[in-house]
Amino acid sequence: MDIGVGMLGQGFMGRAHALAIGRVATFEGLALRPRLVAVAGRDAARLDAFAERFAVERVTTDWRDLIAADVAVFANLGPNALHAVPTIEAARAGKHVLCEKPLGRDAQEALAIEREVAAAGVTALCAFNYRFVPAVRLARQILEAGDLGELFHARFAYLQAWGADADESVWRFDAAEAGSGALGDLASHVVDLARFLVGEIDVVTGLEQRFVAGRAVDDAVAATLRFAGGAVGTLEATRFATGNANRLAFEINGAHGALRFDLERLNELEVADRHGFRRILVTEPEHPFAARWWPHGHGLGWDHTFAHEWAHLLGAIAGDHGVGPYGATFADGTAAARVCDAIVEAARTERAVHVASAER
Amino acid sequence: MDIGVGMLGQGFMGRAHALAIGRVATFEGLALRPRLVAVAGRDAARLDAFAERFAVERVTTDWRDLIAADVAVFANLGPNALHAVPTIEAARAGKHVLCEKPLGRDAQEALAIEREVAAAGVTALCAFNYRFVPAVRLARQILEAGDLGELFHARFAYLQAWGADADESVWRFDAAEAGSGALGDLASHVVDLARFLVGEIDVVTGLEQRFVAGRAVDDAVAATLRFAGGAVGTLEATRFATGNANRLAFEINGAHGALRFDLERLNELEVADRHGFRRILVTEPEHPFAARWWPHGHGLGWDHTFAHEWAHLLGAIAGDHGVGPYGATFADGTAAARVCDAIVEAARTERAVHVASAER
Amino acid sequence: MDIGVGMLGQGFMGRAHALAIGRVATFEGLALRPRLVAVAGRDAARLDAFAERFAVERVTTDWRDLIAADVAVFANLGPNALHAVPTIEAARAGKHVLCEKPLGRDAQEALAIEREVAAAGVTALCAFNYRFVPAVRLARQILEAGDLGELFHARFAYLQAWGADADESVWRFDAAEAGSGALGDLASHVVDLARFLVGEIDVVTGLEQRFVAGRAVDDAVAATLRFAGGAVGTLEATRFATGNANRLAFEINGAHGALRFDLERLNELEVADRHGFRRILVTEPEHPFAARWWPHGHGLGWDHTFAHEWAHLLGAIAGDHGVGPYGATFADGTAAARVCDAIVEAARTERAVHVASAER
Amino acid sequence: MDIGVGMLGQGFMGRAHALAIGRVATFEGLALRPRLVAVAGRDAARLDAFAERFAVERVTTDWRDLIAADVAVFANLGPNALHAVPTIEAARAGKHVLCEKPLGRDAQEALAIEREVAAAGVTALCAFNYRFVPAVRLARQILEAGDLGELFHARFAYLQAWGADADESVWRFDAAEAGSGALGDLASHVVDLARFLVGEIDVVTGLEQRFVAGRAVDDAVAATLRFAGGAVGTLEATRFATGNANRLAFEINGAHGALRFDLERLNELEVADRHGFRRILVTEPEHPFAARWWPHGHGLGWDHTFAHEWAHLLGAIAGDHGVGPYGATFADGTAAARVCDAIVEAARTERAVHVASAER
Repeated sequence: MDIGVGMLGQGFMGRAHALAIGRVATFEGLALRPRLVAVAGRDAARLDAFAERFAVERVTTDWRDLIAADVAVFANLGPNALHAVPTIEAARAGKHVLCEKPLGRDAQEALAIEREVAAAGVTALCAFNYRFVPAVRLARQILEAGDLGELFHARFAYLQAWGADADESVWRFDAAEAGSGALGDLASHVVDLARFLVGEIDVVTGLEQRFVAGRAVDDAVAATLRFAGGAVGTLEATRFATGNANRLAFEINGAHGALRFDLERLNELEVADRHGFRRILVTEPEHPFAARWWPHGHGLGWDHTFAHEWAHLLGAIAGDHGVGPYGATFADGTAAARVCDAIVEAARTERAVHVASAER
Repeated sequence: MDIGVGMLGQGFMGRAHALAIGRVATFEGLALRPRLVAVAGRDAARLDAFAERFAVERVTTDWRDLIAADVAVFANLGPNALHAVPTIEAARAGKHVLCEKPLGRDAQEALAIEREVAAAGVTALCAFNYRFVPAVRLARQILEAGDLGELFHARFAYLQAWGADADESVWRFDAAEAGSGALGDLASHVVDLARFLVGEIDVVTGLEQRFVAGRAVDDAVAATLRFAGGAVGTLEATRFATGNANRLAFEINGAHGALRFDLERLNELEVADRHGFRRILVTEPEHPFAARWWPHGHGLGWDHTFAHEWAHLLGAIAGDHGVGPYGATFADGTAAARVCDAIVEAARTERAVHVASAER
Repeated sequence: MDIGVGMLGQGFMGRAHALAIGRVATFEGLALRPRLVAVAGRDAARLDAFAERFAVERVTTDWRDLIAADVAVFANLGPNALHAVPTIEAARAGKHVLCEKPLGRDAQEALAIEREVAAAGVTALCAFNYRFVPAVRLARQILEAGDLGELFHARFAYLQAWGADADESVWRFDAAEAGSGALGDLASHVVDLARFLVGEIDVVTGLEQRFVAGRAVDDAVAATLRFAGGAVGTLEATRFATGNANRLAFEINGAHGALRFDLERLNELEVADRHGFRRILVTEPEHPFAARWWPHGHGLGWDHTFAHEWAHLLGAIAGDHGVGPYGATFADGTAAARVCDAIVEAARTERAVHVASAER
Repeated sequence: MDIGVGMLGQGFMGRAHALAIGRVATFEGLALRPRLVAVAGRDAARLDAFAERFAVERVTTDWRDLIAADVAVFANLGPNALHAVPTIEAARAGKHVLCEKPLGRDAQEALAIEREVAAAGVTALCAFNYRFVPAVRLARQILEAGDLGELFHARFAYLQAWGADADESVWRFDAAEAGSGALGDLASHVVDLARFLVGEIDVVTGLEQRFVAGRAVDDAVAATLRFAGGAVGTLEATRFATGNANRLAFEINGAHGALRFDLERLNELEVADRHGFRRILVTEPEHPFAARWWPHGHGLGWDHTFAHEWAHLLGAIAGDHGVGPYGATFADGTAAARVCDAIVEAARTERAVHVASAER
């Protein structure tokens, strides 16, 4: 059965989701087959070009037009400041919602969105797409199975390097539009993965840094973490890590083994026992998502994660499974925001912050 | 302007090309926008399922039905034994043709296809898709610019590991259908890349091996190479290299530097000067094909190469550029087959074989 | 000219230094040629065996016997609790001193040693041997030359994995003997390198962890760092990072490039410009220490760093150069201890600690 | 008990062996403790300097002076042309002999040395030192245990890069002194390892190349190999592989797993099962040679292999074990030379050469 999607956003994220929708539509055995029926954006000329390339039936410069009969799923890919109102209104109108991360500009806003959407009773996914990297899902499976034993350490980092030369006119550098800099853009991803893989974070200490004078948002954050389960770790996110392009990396050490991942080599997971790390190419037939694709060794790209994400959302809408625990719920979006807020508070007050106390 | 594609083959390759056609259709600024209008295959039930998933208008169990008014491009993705006749007939009917590699089951068959299609005057591309890996194209650019100086060495290997457990009922193990084993399947790819990157091969010595008793086709080949330009090297292809999944790898050493590539890490090219290798993530905005995709560090997958290949073919049909030198022409298909035949002859006769003498 | 060395300690460190002394004695062009004349230890039987293997003239179970006419250099390789008194007494007797790290069990003890030895006017080196890894020295040279521009980030970690199975009867787990666990043993090394490469550390936040119930010393520490020069970073040391053996690793990102090092691959330094990391094998003739050894590509081992350290100390004694800045002075030993103390205080108080305020 | 060593050669190899002798003398539990008593070389001034650095009792410009009462082991580290006569004469005088590789300048010379020395009944080791890299020995253990099952493939390469800029006045480029270029210098090492790890080589095809006009010896060789046990492979040695420093590398694929090694990372062995390669740091307590050295993760250098080699030779002299199979016997030296000769003959005749037929 076809299901209509309306999409707010036609930029980089709009393109990634549009391609994914086209691709997931070719998957075998989908109960619901997505069709991109409408796109909203600010620039009418660009919208027309977008519609032609992606065969979208209608476009609009008013996102409210997406809340219409032909749309069953509302995908919010707009700037962070536009997450709350459209997502809530779409949900109230009975649309299922996908909202890009970070859910809100802070935990308070995220919680408001979470509560309103929960009240509406629709299916809702916060688009932390890295949960849908096959190697990340495999890491989760290994951890769920308890193969690593008691967890001791977790290191999470998201390192990019374009911050020094950035065009500051984009919304990502506008404090009102974005809410934060590397924190919401990059740290939120690794906070979500830390929670997804290791569990809840109890206490953080840390710092926030602006390298460019006058910059309205943070360029980098660094933190130490105490997890509720007993592990300790570090977390870092920056746009100033020269030499790195898109290195979302983690390492988790437990009593019986360890895991390592680096998004720059996204088809690989390194899995250690006590005698060193083995490189697993996560493309074997029995690996997560592999049955959708190619023979072993024929790697996937960054954009394939969005197809997995859409297939997951559609499965949840169809009632095959929940959004969680493998997809991020809006509650996960709020929880990630709480940790991010705690890092900001720890940096500002120069004190350790207990994350639970951030709840409002 | 839309252009219709008819496709022979609905298996692994059919799926890869169908997805690529859908994807390239979303590229900006294409003169010709491909539409998959018809697919031919042996199994009617599977054809129907395929058509539904990929929104193909019509299906047929007779490939001759593809030579019709709605089809301007004939894509031959069938078993090797089906390359010659359908490709030639389609070309004679004025269809542009894409033919999977190896072009023929040996150089003689390849040459016949090449000549007939040339006589028809259509645009023809031999689908050596690894020319369309961004890192491989970047390697070609570096070599074209002469940055490595005189070339000394070239090592090419295509290592897979599934041969021991293979299902021998598939056409790949049928000598009549496939023509050869690892030779045509894997070695042909690295022979094409050796020619693409280093130049013509003059002399080969080597061996061929069957590890499984009674196997009708070769499991592995190994060769030494003398290139016309003065470099020397080795070439190997096998389905028995346990520990490797899909390692098409090369290293080229010149007077001023060197290059290394491994398909298992297809977004990377290693580039050496005389002080060691630098890892280049081939996703910077100015890198080959990158403008079509994502910001730096957001890697592509194996299947993106097919989209690049289709965009290239469509550009050639539109008259924007030739099929060569960046795509493989049918003459390239024949030339690769001559080298493969020479390896077989060298293995059989236990003598060095001069490739030029293989011309018939 | 020969110069006599007396050594306190016959364990793992005693063996490393004894071999290094034998090796550095074969170096070309040394003004002072070291000879190991006496060794002190607790166990007479083991001392005799040691003396036979390393051709030591005399042994003693009383370290005071090392302060004798035949000894010009006193090397203190004993447990941390034995650093202060013997080192100070040897210096007062006019012996040059080498003292293993950490200099004292805390900054106060380190400062006392530093002051007493300074008053004695002898040459003194704190044996942070990783400053003498060729790749680390090369990193320092690159940073001194300013090739990286403004520094943004520094990540330092020392990850070992033997903590869970450790024999707790050794002095390393005795709080009185060792002073601390991973902190003094491992973190002190990376604190020293952070200071050596990036500069003074101003502020730390962090945590300390004991994974084994009842353990008297810390198993792990983690911290965020603010450097006086403007960079920010993280630091971690642990004996519970399963999968790692001896991974002292750092990454430093500046405006124009970056550096990476991992002690498990100690012959390599990774050096990035803005287009990715190049692997430098630090064995080229012009690389640090290389002229002492072999042709390019013939790597050194962990124990070669001790030979470099002894050659440096002997050069300082001969007046060819100072102990600093390339060797660690006792002031460096105190400075490292201040940072370590600050991490402990930050962990205990759950507050950011300004390192300067740690001075007493 | 002390045992006197006389050494012919004071260059790079002389220095490596002298250091190793000093080092192995500190090993625990040696029945025979080596003492370097005499060194012979061409240059008296350099000999004096060498003697002072390495505490050698006497020096001579006539190697015959080494065949004296104080010398029980004669170590021949001279140019290849000086291997035969001194080694044979020393053996005839009852000295145990170590001879650097290649044993002779061709198989005929090697065989003559082998026979004369065998007749003398002394202990004789051909100094293929890479057998004494811990990772190589571990590879041998894994293969001996049959863990890889039937062997399919073996790739061996020894890649250096200094050939283009070389000082051609050294003996290595003199055909009479050296016998050959990359063949005897580099290929002989990998031929020995191929035999050590995989077994006898039956048939080779290949080529030989000189890149520099007028060069008297080969710059590179490349070959395909058929092993007696059924595996096939390639072998390459060159001084023109820009980007590589000292990359002696192999990969061996069997039915159940695979092994990889690279001398540029000599502390590592990569071991695959059917799900990818694990990096083993070969420094765990139970790994080969590790008990002589340091805790896990404290890597060894290139020169440590010579200490292992000397300990092995001394053990063989003491009667603890044979020279083979873990050390290379002179018969191994001859066997390696036969394979090298076969590669030359295959290159010259452009035919496959059966190695057995090379026996004279």
